[in-house]
Amino acid sequence: MNELIEKARKLRKAAKQMAILSAEEKNSALMIMAEHLLTKKEWIITENAKDIEAGKENGFTESLLDRLLLTEERIGQIVDGVRQLIDLEDPIGETIEAWERPNGLQIETIRVPLGVIGMVYEARPNVTVDAGSLCLKAGNAVLLRGSSSAIHSNKALVHVMHEALAETAIPVDAVQLLEDTSRETASEMFKLNQYLDVLIPRGGAGLIQTVIQNATVPVLETGVGNCHVFIDETAKENMAIDIAINAKLHRPSVCNAAETVLIHKNWPFADELLSSFHDRGVELRGDTELTSTYSFVKPATEEDWSSEFLAPILAVKQVSDVKEAIDHIDHYGTKHSEAIISENPDNVRLFFQTIDAAVLYHNASTRFTDGEQFGYGAEIGISTQKLHARGPMGLRALTTTKAIVRGTGQIRS
Amino acid sequence: MNELIEKARKLRKAAKQMAILSAEEKNSALMIMAEHLLTKKEWIITENAKDIEAGKENGFTESLLDRLLLTEERIGQIVDGVRQLIDLEDPIGETIEAWERPNGLQIETIRVPLGVIGMVYEARPNVTVDAGSLCLKAGNAVLLRGSSSAIHSNKALVHVMHEALAETAIPVDAVQLLEDTSRETASEMFKLNQYLDVLIPRGGAGLIQTVIQNATVPVLETGVGNCHVFIDETAKENMAIDIAINAKLHRPSVCNAAETVLIHKNWPFADELLSSFHDRGVELRGDTELTSTYSFVKPATEEDWSSEFLAPILAVKQVSDVKEAIDHIDHYGTKHSEAIISENPDNVRLFFQTIDAAVLYHNASTRFTDGEQFGYGAEIGISTQKLHARGPMGLRALTTTKAIVRGTGQIRS
Repeated sequence: MNELIEKARKLRKAAKQMAILSAEEKNSALMIMAEHLLTKKEWIITENAKDIEAGKENGFTESLLDRLLLTEERIGQIVDGVRQLIDLEDPIGETIEAWERPNGLQIETIRVPLGVIGMVYEARPNVTVDAGSLCLKAGNAVLLRGSSSAIHSNKALVHVMHEALAETAIPVDAVQLLEDTSRETASEMFKLNQYLDVLIPRGGAGLIQTVIQNATVPVLETGVGNCHVFIDETAKENMAIDIAINAKLHRPSVCNAAETVLIHKNWPFADELLSSFHDRGVELRGDTELTSTYSFVKPATEEDWSSEFLAPILAVKQVSDVKEAIDHIDHYGTKHSEAIISENPDNVRLFFQTIDAAVLYHNASTRFTDGEQFGYGAEIGISTQKLHARGPMGLRALTTTKAIVRGTGQIRS
Repeated sequence: MNELIEKARKLRKAAKQMAILSAEEKNSALMIMAEHLLTKKEWIITENAKDIEAGKENGFTESLLDRLLLTEERIGQIVDGVRQLIDLEDPIGETIEAWERPNGLQIETIRVPLGVIGMVYEARPNVTVDAGSLCLKAGNAVLLRGSSSAIHSNKALVHVMHEALAETAIPVDAVQLLEDTSRETASEMFKLNQYLDVLIPRGGAGLIQTVIQNATVPVLETGVGNCHVFIDETAKENMAIDIAINAKLHRPSVCNAAETVLIHKNWPFADELLSSFHDRGVELRGDTELTSTYSFVKPATEEDWSSEFLAPILAVKQVSDVKEAIDHIDHYGTKHSEAIISENPDNVRLFFQTIDAAVLYHNASTRFTDGEQFGYGAEIGISTQKLHARGPMGLRALTTTKAIVRGTGQIRS
């Protein structure tokens, strides 16, 4: 039996045990896991150094090496993340709805774990613990498939997690690292419907598309955000500029950062807005209305309107009204997060009603599309698909339901 | 541009219009659709006769021809189904949750249509209207991909639906029939993520697996039910026998019918139960304990325990206790519907807590796993997967959510 099937079977079995654990048992296990990670941090850093070494030999970029790196401080952050899960309410066992049928049947839907989750991610060893512990908190078993370039770090982290779980009610087998990081085995994993209930890819667009294209196991799609900020005619000057700057520049490399700002042609502060971006070193790419007025705005190509730059580059466009803004967003958007800055309630209503996206904002930055910012306490990703969960996904996104029906001998007539 | 892409584009556009329709507009459209279907029933029957004729020429079985057949009575039933949708509450626009964040952001999640749904089904022309009208009621546009053997019936039904919609607020383009029923085009449809939000296959296990294996568009999986009835030591004689008979024989061809009855070895009424089945012409296949006692019980093969017979055949097995019953169900079940007949609350609790299935029953027939029986008013299928919807799926399963965030200039720090 190969490693994948062997581990998948163990996970299936562990998932059964996980499903009946109490919140206290899971929380106590997370506490012990946090302690072990702290105690073993030096060894983890030593193992991580092997990946860093190999990365350098393979000519990894500085930013890639930085993602891979574990330091004492970063392990501290990982441990804090695990501890924060302890305070979150356990979603398992919650009654979602309960009702009685005319024939006397009592129906109750309750929240239960998904079962076995397959996490597929890139060279960020923190995901091993972040995602792993989140899955456990929601009562799931988890198969971790990280990058070969982080294999020493991942093995060390999972080794420590196993040592910790051995002292707890959570079965050690509930966390498994797939050490065979070949493409063939990944393909096999993506089709393992018999053992895996869901796949969650975390990483760049390429990784996510690979999983979607090859999976038969249901996928929780996270991903691309080509987010827009539309500044309406009535938008307040400072509010609009602050929000646009924040949405673009607070953290340009993430999916909820803005990529295009649409400016109503009658809004009087376009000068101030564009200068603010220019002064901050943002490359502006605009339509002809803007390039003809502002020498520092370069012409935008068709591709720019649909680009997720993830960099200090911003597409800017003048629009005649809210409808043109909506049409632009409909055409180029990725249904992630879209904002309108306006003092006109009718336009806000139209924007909210018409645009099909996970999260819509009025007078706030798109950067709030985030599990913690939404108050979910932790986040497994931001769903850009419409099934199961849409937008920021917290613990509940890692659960499913079960209907319990209590009768007194009812049969169907 | 081929037919598929052309229709998919029209659907995408229609979906935008659908999303902002009021409940009244949708209901009035359904009413008009029902009237048109009644007015044109004779023409529909004439068109259906062409499919029946072709089916006979192609040597279709009686049961296949029966599925294909539209009669005045059956069209009446289809029309009744459409009319029943009118009374159902419109799920669109419903506030699911609303909360405020410490920074003053007001977050509200509301229910919105999925968008464009791809229905994939077999030679049952009633699905064209049943599923089509259900999708419309939930504010979706729908691409119908039926069987080539029902093409004349489907074209006629969609033609009448189009004539009706032309008089209503629902855009005519919101319902499209894919007339090209080739496998190649089906494969293309299953990967049309740009235009389709979800695929719903309705039919046999083969069809469902084909969709799952080939789709990149998310699939709402419906399907196989290898359902069990476990009769515990304390089960009441008549209740247990009535439920077992009902679960097996009320409609043996459907997924919520029971396929195996597990009998506690100390339950005193096994004779009566097995004779009741035997007297009703049910073929019994059992383990050695039962075959050695009852001459009319044939030996069960390993395959029998995992079979969805969909016929008057029943697997029967003696078990030592509730745990053995649970283990058997875990091993052979399909996580659909499982029942325990018992007067022992501890055993019921263990059964409910331990078994991983969409619906669990105490002292009731598995036949209640059904949208109408659950009180959903209509059903698009019974989900056997864990994402999005599990168990009977009503109108809500055809919706997703959208988060609306209202701010006063909040930016992320």
